[in-house]
Amino acid sequence: MTPYRLVCTDCGGSFDPAAAEYLCPDCGGSGPPGHAPRGVLRVEFDRPSAPFPDPAFPDARRWHALLPLASPDLLPPLPVGPTPLHHPARLARELGLPGLVLKDDTGLPTGSLKDRASSVVVGKARELGRDTITTASTGNAAVALAAMAASVGLRAVILVPQTSPIAKRTQMLVFGATVVPVEGTYDDAYALSLEATRVFGWYNRSTAYNPYTIDGKKTVAFELWEQLGRRAPDAVVVPTGDGVILAGVHKGFCDLHALGLVDRLPRLYAAQAAGSAAITRACERADGEVPGHAGARTIADSICVSVPAAGRWAVRALRETGGGGLTVTDDEITEAIGLLGRTAGIFAEPAAAAALAGVRRATREGLVRPGETIAVLVTGNGLKDVAAGGRAVTMPEPIVPTLEALRRRVAAEAS
Amino acid sequence: MTPYRLVCTDCGGSFDPAAAEYLCPDCGGSGPPGHAPRGVLRVEFDRPSAPFPDPAFPDARRWHALLPLASPDLLPPLPVGPTPLHHPARLARELGLPGLVLKDDTGLPTGSLKDRASSVVVGKARELGRDTITTASTGNAAVALAAMAASVGLRAVILVPQTSPIAKRTQMLVFGATVVPVEGTYDDAYALSLEATRVFGWYNRSTAYNPYTIDGKKTVAFELWEQLGRRAPDAVVVPTGDGVILAGVHKGFCDLHALGLVDRLPRLYAAQAAGSAAITRACERADGEVPGHAGARTIADSICVSVPAAGRWAVRALRETGGGGLTVTDDEITEAIGLLGRTAGIFAEPAAAAALAGVRRATREGLVRPGETIAVLVTGNGLKDVAAGGRAVTMPEPIVPTLEALRRRVAAEAS
Repeated sequence: MTPYRLVCTDCGGSFDPAAAEYLCPDCGGSGPPGHAPRGVLRVEFDRPSAPFPDPAFPDARRWHALLPLASPDLLPPLPVGPTPLHHPARLARELGLPGLVLKDDTGLPTGSLKDRASSVVVGKARELGRDTITTASTGNAAVALAAMAASVGLRAVILVPQTSPIAKRTQMLVFGATVVPVEGTYDDAYALSLEATRVFGWYNRSTAYNPYTIDGKKTVAFELWEQLGRRAPDAVVVPTGDGVILAGVHKGFCDLHALGLVDRLPRLYAAQAAGSAAITRACERADGEVPGHAGARTIADSICVSVPAAGRWAVRALRETGGGGLTVTDDEITEAIGLLGRTAGIFAEPAAAAALAGVRRATREGLVRPGETIAVLVTGNGLKDVAAGGRAVTMPEPIVPTLEALRRRVAAEAS
Repeated sequence: MTPYRLVCTDCGGSFDPAAAEYLCPDCGGSGPPGHAPRGVLRVEFDRPSAPFPDPAFPDARRWHALLPLASPDLLPPLPVGPTPLHHPARLARELGLPGLVLKDDTGLPTGSLKDRASSVVVGKARELGRDTITTASTGNAAVALAAMAASVGLRAVILVPQTSPIAKRTQMLVFGATVVPVEGTYDDAYALSLEATRVFGWYNRSTAYNPYTIDGKKTVAFELWEQLGRRAPDAVVVPTGDGVILAGVHKGFCDLHALGLVDRLPRLYAAQAAGSAAITRACERADGEVPGHAGARTIADSICVSVPAAGRWAVRALRETGGGGLTVTDDEITEAIGLLGRTAGIFAEPAAAAALAGVRRATREGLVRPGETIAVLVTGNGLKDVAAGGRAVTMPEPIVPTLEALRRRVAAEAS
């Protein structure tokens, strides 16, 4: 393992990993209530001596020189990447962006990019000898945690608000997680998970609280770099809710830059739903604060967040790279599901389609140019939310089983 | 392209590909009504001169020397494989089968093994200059066709019985297919698709009617062989409805055997639901006929078939390899969904879990031995049927948000 320290992204404090497990011991969690919290820690590696990437491994283990794990064998056996990088000719033509590429994480073990983070965190729990991992979540991150924990025989205890969707709960239960519905809100479930972490000694996986989630997500940037012929794209559009995927992409390119493997960072763009746009809104502020978006609401459940846990890191990354926020409506997201499906054969969940909707907006606003390489992250599988896919299409009426009726129907659709 | 002929699996007639497009021109479709039809054609290649596998390609194109396509570039851009081969330590221990491996197709572009077949057939349509492909289906095969066609801009016309499940229809529509619900039964929709094929000149993808579907599915056998270190497993357990996946696996190993790359075929086992067991039942007959299973019914919709289109080929493959049929109940299938999830972190649709249920039966009956390499095909993603997953688990009651309540819940689950 390459030695590393944990550095606070707010106060700059630097800590030995043995001395700081979650947020910054100095400033973690401080700041105005209802704002993105301070004190997210960032892993800062020494210069690695192991090969990067290591050609001995076909999957995420190839990045072990820059993973915060004592051994690549700590990663669970469910392989996480590399996922396909598509050059979608028909979609690129329709958008007028010949350099468009899609980084398609829909085929990861549980169907979302969150597998990258949960894989690394479960590896860390094994390294630390923890047998129980907990998180408060209703979504893809908890599903990914449940699967990765199951594959190595660790216990996952997932605290969900009582009102969480039944489909996601089902997935977690199939993976054998201890799913505990908690009377109250998400905040109640989250508070209880922190208490259990402290009192029971469980390991906590919550994103931007556990610093290693971001170093899991960063492998998507490593793969992009390798699949583009060892270079960075000009821009990356990231579906953004709590800002952690954006932070992961930023961290990945920063790691590559520190090694001299890219000469600049790509411009990062956060695609946010208009009803959950805390990070995009905060880009316009001078003071670096990220107030929450009270009553956040959007069809894209995976990016529906009031107070973004990694909001401060995300806003800095957007500024530092010369990118920015892209706000899209739920209608634009729904339309993007259909566009992606019928031109590229990819079925995305709403949050993932939000990034494509964001690219359209960026094109209209002149933020991206046709000659550039623009990478769009497709972060989750549409099978996770079939009902949202249904809003993107029209259910046809039945015909009588005759050639003539079929001929008329097909002619009508072609016109 | 390696030259090939199409050989009838029943009468042995041999045809130039230009002279036989679907079933055998001599005996195709004959035989007793309600029985598996005669005349499925089999692709027989000359000895290839191109490298096999071709290391120039990372995906299914690496098998191009034994694909019935004029060029590997005809395959659609959505990459089909290689999919992971898992050595699931915890599951293997629970079953007492240390040599168990899982071939996991849940992460293919549309979440099922059918992507393999649709990819090759869409490639064939491009080679033949056809712009419209049709099929009658309610399931994964049609979804896969829709996605592959979308990615290259061909039109897919999918005829579905009026009563088909809304979720699958949604997927096809998102992929831009022309979905035509037909008043009447599946048989009415199928008959209309054949008529449209004849009259409108559309290309027909229906399995075991179009001979190239089987040469698409066979790539799962090629990958198994390569991932096991260029050897065949001792046995392969295949979820089986119409018999086409089984025929594909058989064809793949026969191709490898013809090249001298394996010295014997693995024993093939068909895992069938008790309520849809035409092929398993037919194994006990001496006359080679495969009567349909009238009123077929099972939770595993993807293998629910009355008259199996490739039934005759499948039964011969089971016999010839020394394998056989494995009948499992719907309860055993449901239990296998949970077992696979909690021990391996994989969420399978019911049909895919049927193969694991079949392995348990084979173990009880002494058909497989602990020292053997047993490959189980996980053919479809559980996200395609979340409700079936729900039957495998118990939804927990909520707790009040206190440490004490959480402690009691976790202790109760651990006991």
